[in-house]
Amino acid sequence: MSSENPDLAIAQAATLEPIETIAARAGIPAEALIPYGRTKAKVDLRALAASTPTRSGDGEHRLVLVTAMSPTPAGEGKSTTTVGLADAFTLRGRRTMVALREPALGPIMGIKGGATGGGYAQVVPMEDINLHFTGDFHAIQIANNTLAALVDNHIQQGNALGIDPRRLQIKRVVDVNDRALRHVVIGLGGPLQGVPREDGFDIVVASEIMAILCLARDIHDLQRRIAAMVVGFTYDREAVTVADLRVEGAITLLLKDAINPNLVQTLGGTPALVHGGPFANIAHGCNSLTATALAQSLSEVTVTEAGFGSDLGAEKFLDITARFGRLTPDAVVVVATVRALKMHGGVARTELDREDVEAALAGTANLHRHVENIRGFGLEPVIALNRFPNDTDAELEAVLAWAGERGFRAARSEVWARGGEGALDLADQVAAAFEDGGAFRHLYDPCDGIEASLTTIATRIYGADRVELEGRAPAQLRMLARHGWDRLPVCVAKTQYSFSDDPTLLGAPSGHVLHVRDLVPKIGAGFVVALTGDIMTMPGLPREPAALRMGVDAEGNAVGLF
Amino acid sequence: MSSENPDLAIAQAATLEPIETIAARAGIPAEALIPYGRTKAKVDLRALAASTPTRSGDGEHRLVLVTAMSPTPAGEGKSTTTVGLADAFTLRGRRTMVALREPALGPIMGIKGGATGGGYAQVVPMEDINLHFTGDFHAIQIANNTLAALVDNHIQQGNALGIDPRRLQIKRVVDVNDRALRHVVIGLGGPLQGVPREDGFDIVVASEIMAILCLARDIHDLQRRIAAMVVGFTYDREAVTVADLRVEGAITLLLKDAINPNLVQTLGGTPALVHGGPFANIAHGCNSLTATALAQSLSEVTVTEAGFGSDLGAEKFLDITARFGRLTPDAVVVVATVRALKMHGGVARTELDREDVEAALAGTANLHRHVENIRGFGLEPVIALNRFPNDTDAELEAVLAWAGERGFRAARSEVWARGGEGALDLADQVAAAFEDGGAFRHLYDPCDGIEASLTTIATRIYGADRVELEGRAPAQLRMLARHGWDRLPVCVAKTQYSFSDDPTLLGAPSGHVLHVRDLVPKIGAGFVVALTGDIMTMPGLPREPAALRMGVDAEGNAVGLF
Repeated sequence: MSSENPDLAIAQAATLEPIETIAARAGIPAEALIPYGRTKAKVDLRALAASTPTRSGDGEHRLVLVTAMSPTPAGEGKSTTTVGLADAFTLRGRRTMVALREPALGPIMGIKGGATGGGYAQVVPMEDINLHFTGDFHAIQIANNTLAALVDNHIQQGNALGIDPRRLQIKRVVDVNDRALRHVVIGLGGPLQGVPREDGFDIVVASEIMAILCLARDIHDLQRRIAAMVVGFTYDREAVTVADLRVEGAITLLLKDAINPNLVQTLGGTPALVHGGPFANIAHGCNSLTATALAQSLSEVTVTEAGFGSDLGAEKFLDITARFGRLTPDAVVVVATVRALKMHGGVARTELDREDVEAALAGTANLHRHVENIRGFGLEPVIALNRFPNDTDAELEAVLAWAGERGFRAARSEVWARGGEGALDLADQVAAAFEDGGAFRHLYDPCDGIEASLTTIATRIYGADRVELEGRAPAQLRMLARHGWDRLPVCVAKTQYSFSDDPTLLGAPSGHVLHVRDLVPKIGAGFVVALTGDIMTMPGLPREPAALRMGVDAEGNAVGLF
Repeated sequence: MSSENPDLAIAQAATLEPIETIAARAGIPAEALIPYGRTKAKVDLRALAASTPTRSGDGEHRLVLVTAMSPTPAGEGKSTTTVGLADAFTLRGRRTMVALREPALGPIMGIKGGATGGGYAQVVPMEDINLHFTGDFHAIQIANNTLAALVDNHIQQGNALGIDPRRLQIKRVVDVNDRALRHVVIGLGGPLQGVPREDGFDIVVASEIMAILCLARDIHDLQRRIAAMVVGFTYDREAVTVADLRVEGAITLLLKDAINPNLVQTLGGTPALVHGGPFANIAHGCNSLTATALAQSLSEVTVTEAGFGSDLGAEKFLDITARFGRLTPDAVVVVATVRALKMHGGVARTELDREDVEAALAGTANLHRHVENIRGFGLEPVIALNRFPNDTDAELEAVLAWAGERGFRAARSEVWARGGEGALDLADQVAAAFEDGGAFRHLYDPCDGIEASLTTIATRIYGADRVELEGRAPAQLRMLARHGWDRLPVCVAKTQYSFSDDPTLLGAPSGHVLHVRDLVPKIGAGFVVALTGDIMTMPGLPREPAALRMGVDAEGNAVGLF
């Protein structure tokens, strides 16, 4: 095992089962399996629908959502816990599947270096999943950019629809952290080179097409949603949709393979669907609905994950994905670590290795609110205390005791070092939570209007006093009402580091104001994005990008992913 | 068969053999096959090298290059002829493979609609190959754009190398015909958003990484070439390479799967390697060297294709690809059509359906020069007269008689309608040409310098009187000499429609001047690009893009590709 990147070394040392074996274990018939190499495949949803189901529909189909306390630079290990928990259910003899997001290449080349779990709790083949995988993000990228080019070409070729180049909504995307593309001017060079206008690029995971792919039920729903996408507005302020341009067919054609979920495996041999990957701070942050629904239909226990904390991915899973997909989680795991608790309790990152029970307990204020947030949805939370090597027993015991005093289910998790074996207790607690039988309810009713929905999210989940619409937001709210788009769910783009829109406010801040500076209709996705604070839709690279450490060895194998 | 797009209808109606069967026919061992679905696969070059060869090395390994007369909007059917000729050799009992370029999505969405042959001479699965295929172009796109972002990030983060933002060579790429990205300004928005500078996007097939992928022998040669790429220059006019940025490993990692050739099949069951696809007017225009070399090692007859006419793809195949890969073609097919001959003979496109023997014979001036150009390389040309439905027997016979009088081998080809059966005579003529045993020689010696090489190409191939270096070209020539890059092969970027740099000069113009306006070093690829005329590295979309006709049907199958 290389000390530099043990995750990659562990993954490369593992003997993977053929994807046909994994598919058979999941109950996916051979005719619905489209192999991509020997250890990954797409599941052909059409062929699957046409096949005879191998599993009866009358068993248990439990859905577990994994979320976390507010992340810190110390790391929380949410994907790792998700994978390890699934492997623990497999060890307990339950037919289990895991549904995860696909990693984005931009952040991998920037800081992350990989996003497929860690240690002995990974989805594999780790290198493939972290690089191009089955090409879904590339398909989304070119579908989006083809659409953008068709829009600019329409303007160039006479602009029959009267599109106002100053009011375009569609932006081009790349799966690269490229800050130089945030603000650009395109169409320069004279009349044959397009119409000059201000523009900007987003990262692929922030695109509406990514959100659509993750919310569409099938290819026809995908096409319907793409047709409804608003690419911009006319000089008369009328919406211009993809249907107006008559290219929803071509864009859907570019996505016809991408909509099929990808099947891989965990290191514990649990079938895993890894599909779609909208960011959770700037988009809705859950893997595809098709993947989660497919996993749930095939297995007794499905473990899925939403990005960041209960304020971001989980809230969006429960209010957007679950609403569109009519999903009801049976339990919610909230991942916490002593290190993150200590940072929320005021310890500097450089001081984390020193035992500090008091700081860990002070940090439970953050965890407490995440747990209560989950209860606010009528769901039963289970705290997974994910052990890191330098955590002391005193710290771990203090946090578990704190949870016990308050009647919160909680368990240690040691999945990085021990895989599924390290989450057996956690799995048992989750299984016990299944029996509690909560009454799941969405947090807000979109019919009350966007301002009401925002206020409910801000006060109930973020601990804010109120919402303030600033900048473009008030005018956009009137625009949304004029078009009849003011009764859609809200997807808040907010920093993941704080319950507030200020990333430096750790712990459990209250009494703050949520500043919404823009409201952006995503009619194809079916929600309105509320932009708060400084959330950007295109990350940048750090001074020393992870790319500097990457390469191939003499045999052509990947090095430097982790 | 749909009258709207018969190519797609024919392809969709065909019963394809499993890719494992095709691989076995080609002699590719199972352990070297990486399936992508049921009918396409990548050939793992490392596994192949490690396996025991199933074919002895002492048989015939003939290489046939297919080129064409100067293309016209009437179409010449070069890929169709290439595929049909290979199927004809298969019918004659020869172990045959075909090596072709991958289609680019940008032009498919623009005008082309598909680029995998036509009628009963196609490579299949047609839809997959024309859409994302195995993701090679996407991998090149993100490798290139990650590199570009790393360069701009280096400048942003202190610019330790002293890169001059006004002298960057690397451009971002998309596989979209997007004229609005030709000239842009990036890095706007203040000090946190990058360094403002002029920039522009190219199409993926014009990128140096595409050229490198198509010329690299293996992944290590790939990494060596990427490391040598010149991304720009310092304020002191020193070259800045990828190696200086220390990211050749990361960029190679992103291409580690893309370097493996893709295996598919023709409608006649001939194994086909479809891999890489640099444009022939703005790049070197041949499929990958790895694909051609692999096909040749496995088969008795390999049929490959170079883009456009003898002045573009063929010249570059023979002077660049064959030089780097030490390949020697055994025969060259020059595809001609009565329609193209008539256009070169002065007939307007709208008048092509009327019989005009005289115009067809007048157009042979163009064909004649292509045939003589091939002889100039010491190779034996065979004219393939590709029949179109409205061609009359009188026209066809007149052209064949013209060829016979001059001692040129020639044969009718009816592969669109009849597949391999329609090229049996052509295959026999090509087989006869194998026995002529020409003495292949490159046209020029790069050691004579770039100006001498350019003059040789222009006078011997284009019929020009001389070369004029204009604009930036003289200064660039001095720059190339200063860096020791003036002894590399030359890749001329020139219109495909004329032997000259003026696309309206049809037939066989002579006495003209080749205007070279810029010389661009592509040190990783190993050549210098000479830009002539108005050749652009980013196409635009037409008024009615092919995308308008595309979509998926009720079963999710592609429609509108052709």
